[in-house]
Amino acid sequence: MGAGLVGSLLSIYLKRRGYEVQVYERRPDLRSTGAAGGRSINLAISDRGWKALAGAGLEEQIRKLAIPMHGRMMHSVEGGLTFQPYGQPGQFINSVSRGQLNIDLMNAAESAGVPFHFEQRVLRMDVEAGKATLENLTNQDRYELEADLIIGADGAYSMVRNSLMKTDQFNYSQLYESHCYKELSIPPAPDGGFLIDKNALHIWPRKSFMLIALPNLDGSFTVTLFAPTKGPESFETITTPESLQVYFQKYFPDVLPLMPDLEADFFGNPTGSLMTVKCFPWTVGNGMLIGDAAHAVVPFYGQGMNCGFEDCTVLDELLNTLDDNWSKVLPAYQESRKPNADGIADLARLNFIEMRDLVADPDFLFKRKIAGKVAATHPDRFIPVYSMVSFSHLPYADALKEYTRQDEVLSDVITWPHIGEKWDNEYLPRITELLQNQ
Amino acid sequence: MGAGLVGSLLSIYLKRRGYEVQVYERRPDLRSTGAAGGRSINLAISDRGWKALAGAGLEEQIRKLAIPMHGRMMHSVEGGLTFQPYGQPGQFINSVSRGQLNIDLMNAAESAGVPFHFEQRVLRMDVEAGKATLENLTNQDRYELEADLIIGADGAYSMVRNSLMKTDQFNYSQLYESHCYKELSIPPAPDGGFLIDKNALHIWPRKSFMLIALPNLDGSFTVTLFAPTKGPESFETITTPESLQVYFQKYFPDVLPLMPDLEADFFGNPTGSLMTVKCFPWTVGNGMLIGDAAHAVVPFYGQGMNCGFEDCTVLDELLNTLDDNWSKVLPAYQESRKPNADGIADLARLNFIEMRDLVADPDFLFKRKIAGKVAATHPDRFIPVYSMVSFSHLPYADALKEYTRQDEVLSDVITWPHIGEKWDNEYLPRITELLQNQ
Repeated sequence: MGAGLVGSLLSIYLKRRGYEVQVYERRPDLRSTGAAGGRSINLAISDRGWKALAGAGLEEQIRKLAIPMHGRMMHSVEGGLTFQPYGQPGQFINSVSRGQLNIDLMNAAESAGVPFHFEQRVLRMDVEAGKATLENLTNQDRYELEADLIIGADGAYSMVRNSLMKTDQFNYSQLYESHCYKELSIPPAPDGGFLIDKNALHIWPRKSFMLIALPNLDGSFTVTLFAPTKGPESFETITTPESLQVYFQKYFPDVLPLMPDLEADFFGNPTGSLMTVKCFPWTVGNGMLIGDAAHAVVPFYGQGMNCGFEDCTVLDELLNTLDDNWSKVLPAYQESRKPNADGIADLARLNFIEMRDLVADPDFLFKRKIAGKVAATHPDRFIPVYSMVSFSHLPYADALKEYTRQDEVLSDVITWPHIGEKWDNEYLPRITELLQNQ
Repeated sequence: MGAGLVGSLLSIYLKRRGYEVQVYERRPDLRSTGAAGGRSINLAISDRGWKALAGAGLEEQIRKLAIPMHGRMMHSVEGGLTFQPYGQPGQFINSVSRGQLNIDLMNAAESAGVPFHFEQRVLRMDVEAGKATLENLTNQDRYELEADLIIGADGAYSMVRNSLMKTDQFNYSQLYESHCYKELSIPPAPDGGFLIDKNALHIWPRKSFMLIALPNLDGSFTVTLFAPTKGPESFETITTPESLQVYFQKYFPDVLPLMPDLEADFFGNPTGSLMTVKCFPWTVGNGMLIGDAAHAVVPFYGQGMNCGFEDCTVLDELLNTLDDNWSKVLPAYQESRKPNADGIADLARLNFIEMRDLVADPDFLFKRKIAGKVAATHPDRFIPVYSMVSFSHLPYADALKEYTRQDEVLSDVITWPHIGEKWDNEYLPRITELLQNQ
């Protein structure tokens, strides 16, 4: 259920193993209607995503859609720029349009022989029986499906999960942030080029709120404003074109001249909510959850899709290891993925504070500089948390543990006497020893 | 919505203020069908409950249904008894049958002029419009209700909350314990008397599981087994009359001869789940939640009903203070109650560990003895947590804070030199100073 990114990719994996797979999707086919604009937030593919795409033979093709982003470009109110690399030279994340990626995945799945059924809505599911009742939205016909396994890849507001939730002993939480988001845009330059640096993720950090921008292939940037839902400098206070102008003039003056459609975008696009969903178990009876349906996270680590794609990798690996014995695969899948989904959910919430506030803090940037140097000189002994998450396949749960440990070490290190001069010569061996991965 | 304990009591409060109130209930009228047995867990009314009943003029009447329980009677495997009083002399909690209490509340509400409609199921609700769609279960007719306020007093699995949950920004969690419960019974003595001490809450603490018994007016006891759902010594392992006998013979030998219906009860009654529900907001549009619908807690502090009744007290007080201005009352109600509902939810989970494990621990009992003495000699300066919860109207949230603080103080105190001899003379002033409520 669900022809989004994870559902489409998973269908390819399963079809290649020889299963009969059918994909049902509530929305119309976006290849004919175009993607729903205004609430996408661009995607950033990192190593976990590439591994899953490579496993389905799609890495090379998708690389062509992606724009490398080598680090964060921070914009101060005064217009000053600070660049912070994400990792070592040659390590980068990749901006890609959700719509185009989804289209490529659906095309690949159909080429592999997977039938897609659009505008089909799940009404309810009998989890134990493996039966689902669907509605054909084009003619309101209702019908029943029966399957050996019904997989909910139907996103943060999953209907399959809704049915699992009504079974006994199903733990569930949905937690909204006090912030919402709004999609805006920077158009291409008149010559089709990029108006700001193409190969960076741009951030305008303003403590309790922030603006970000990710590049698109056509020279434009998808811009997103994250701000409190209520209170001072919130979505509640920006209600007129005038208050919007004042707000941007005050906090984002360098980018304002680059956004001719600001007013239309701001008042035309919906205000999106930010929610974390945790639940367990992920498999009940003949139902199973994957991707956002199992673990919706906030977008601040750019890992929502990467985590969902890694679900596919892990499931495929378990099918290999356990000889497609699903009664063993399903428990192993949820035991393996649940702690890691919880880990990235927590890291993503922590990264929001980092992005909107800490990246403008000199101590924070100094700590990152030290960590980067240690990682560069001793890549065998130390991997910073961001690199563990984005440029490795180490468990997210381990990265979450390292988050606290590394920060404690570095917070102490920067209080050492004359740290400003001595860090990268005299102190480096001692720092390396302390930072070394556990 | 809901003619349970809280819904029935609240309807009396609202009717007395002059509102037109209608109560809808999914189940049949238990005055004609009898209470559904086998999954009740007896109730323990404490001071918050009495205050709410007194406010509706019902305290005297309900006192007649209640059996005082002055403390915990712990049963060791060897049959030894240890009594631990709940508070000071004259302080006690009160065992009452859920069914009879509910009947008295419904009768009182009807006498006050509140119409009750049974076998009416809420299907869905339009929260903003204040409209609900119901189904008459006796003839499957569906109809729509419109009201100024639709109050969900429909319990832990609230349908009203289900509708609120679909609105944006609604935070929700449901968490199941790894333990389940089963209702059992000790019948009256042949002469109609009580086979074990009438005025105590009996506990058979066995670390990872426990048995409890509460007295009924007819001489019987309602007995409840709390045990892990899976694993060793769990519900999973007790599958035959033989394994049931072996289990009880091994862990509860003193009570086994008093339970002639054990086998029929155990295999006839359902295995109940234990769930904590937290959510916020409690009011959206023209919908409002109260009682278990807003805050289902595990039963280990005996406060689920008391907390729901206190919701009624607080709502009524706010209606007085704010002159029945609901646009002010509803926000004040949820702001006031939410932290306290969270507090008792956490205390109830902590009390499970205390009941099944700690009450058999000499250090724990010694700490309680010291706290009891300080409370007796300086009632103006110190109230133990249990008394704050059960014998006061202090906020649950404050009691939760005191739980940690008091335990830290007492854990230190019992390590003092010669504490065994010196605690109640030499050390007492110092201990009193340390324990004094903040």
